[in-house]
Amino acid sequence: MRIEIIGAGAVGLLVASYFAEKNMDVYIVGKPTGETVCEDIQIERTNVNQSVTSVNVKYISALSNKANLIIVAVKYGQLHEVYASMEHVKDSIPLLFLQNGLAHYEEALALSKAHIAFCSIQFGALKLSEHHVAHKGEGVMKIAVAKGANDEFSFLNGLSSAGLPIVFEQDAEKMLMEKALLNCFINPLTAILQVKNGQLITQSHTLQLLKDLYNELMTAFPQFKETFHFNQVIALCEKTAENTSSMLADRLANRKTEIDTIAGAILKKAEQNEKKLPVLQTLYYLVKAFEESGEQM
Amino acid sequence: MRIEIIGAGAVGLLVASYFAEKNMDVYIVGKPTGETVCEDIQIERTNVNQSVTSVNVKYISALSNKANLIIVAVKYGQLHEVYASMEHVKDSIPLLFLQNGLAHYEEALALSKAHIAFCSIQFGALKLSEHHVAHKGEGVMKIAVAKGANDEFSFLNGLSSAGLPIVFEQDAEKMLMEKALLNCFINPLTAILQVKNGQLITQSHTLQLLKDLYNELMTAFPQFKETFHFNQVIALCEKTAENTSSMLADRLANRKTEIDTIAGAILKKAEQNEKKLPVLQTLYYLVKAFEESGEQM
Repeated sequence: MRIEIIGAGAVGLLVASYFAEKNMDVYIVGKPTGETVCEDIQIERTNVNQSVTSVNVKYISALSNKANLIIVAVKYGQLHEVYASMEHVKDSIPLLFLQNGLAHYEEALALSKAHIAFCSIQFGALKLSEHHVAHKGEGVMKIAVAKGANDEFSFLNGLSSAGLPIVFEQDAEKMLMEKALLNCFINPLTAILQVKNGQLITQSHTLQLLKDLYNELMTAFPQFKETFHFNQVIALCEKTAENTSSMLADRLANRKTEIDTIAGAILKKAEQNEKKLPVLQTLYYLVKAFEESGEQM
Repeated sequence: MRIEIIGAGAVGLLVASYFAEKNMDVYIVGKPTGETVCEDIQIERTNVNQSVTSVNVKYISALSNKANLIIVAVKYGQLHEVYASMEHVKDSIPLLFLQNGLAHYEEALALSKAHIAFCSIQFGALKLSEHHVAHKGEGVMKIAVAKGANDEFSFLNGLSSAGLPIVFEQDAEKMLMEKALLNCFINPLTAILQVKNGQLITQSHTLQLLKDLYNELMTAFPQFKETFHFNQVIALCEKTAENTSSMLADRLANRKTEIDTIAGAILKKAEQNEKKLPVLQTLYYLVKAFEESGEQM
């Protein structure tokens, strides 16, 4: 089986290493190091228990049109470039999207590809160097097929492992929405307050903010009340207590954040349903203001 | 005429210097420097045009019970101590309160004093050294009598000057509320975003936050719609563009802020009227969270 992964960021490399470990032919699509267009590369993965696993993957400069699965692992902002690069790819090759948020959901489904699935990753990944990735925090890789045949993706079940448990979900949009909601609790607040995830639940005022935000979101999206409980928010803060959230890391590095794909997409969804989210909207504009100011006094 | 001023902070010293300039006998109540209990002190005031005015005032260690007016110029947090120190003071001596916010309004009126007025200061003051204060930005000193006889305060009209124009208002609570509303726009946002006042209107996302906050407050307090326009918020940001707000200054110095007397009091007022202010409440909890965390990562 040949898997081509577009994007050599932390999540792309991590998934590549687990699939290569299961003897898949893994190709990372992107600019290879040096001049070679097809190069064998050893990538290393520091596991949660601090052991290091080495696997071999190949780098190619463009999609081959011979893959059994294409995984799209770039950030939302680079997706339009990726859509263009996939135009020549056969419609029958299944696609799996690994982005955060909801912003990519409808535009991906609008592609003329036959089989499209989405992924919601419940663990963290940190790139340590060009070919070295660290797996941060345990969690499952949720996959939901949104278009085409489930069968095209079912071989992924066999790639499930202790380090990367794979679970199939029924409703892709709901799965992405749940992850985006979770991100809405952690990311903007940690970025605004410059605190680690765990501090959100040890401080009384941030806990109050989390509760206000939870009540606001559940009022706007009552269909989640049954499955999405406040203690999931608490559990995520506990589990990732020592983590610097991706949005805070982006802020500290003066990078553009994912606020639009996470909170922006949920605000849009609420607006479509004629619901207001003043708390989330306030956090959204504050993060946008940081980006706009460049933080200069 | 003898005026005793409790509190030798920036605003207390500034008002003292203007009243001393008008040949009042001005006594500052508080711990004098050195051991003397009654000391002549020269205080200096750097005016808006950068000229420096010197006047003489006296320091005393406690209220004399001989004043024609007592001005209370400490911050809200020290008021309870001041109330206790005033217990032996004759009820007929008029009191003038100079605090920000609304939190002191009802408790001050509950004192057993006959004549009570409140002040809303529309300019800035910055203490440069123990006896040197800078007058920052032009603006009026609004006074409104809330209890007792207007006549007891009317001599203050004669103390009005080009540097300190004094204007009497009818409704003390409304006057304090208007100032608190203005502070709600500037203070929490500048403290959270760490920007100067002017940046609130040059950035599109903070301007949107100001608009959201304005609409929320005017929906909760429609009685202000007639007199309190959004362009007052803009004008204040423009007029104080280069200023670091007091709340940002407090945050940067790791001091307790005035968030409770400003936003907290307005949230309480809204709650009494069964109105919700989710945007202001979010900003309130964020500032409280900064205070609680001590900003350590």
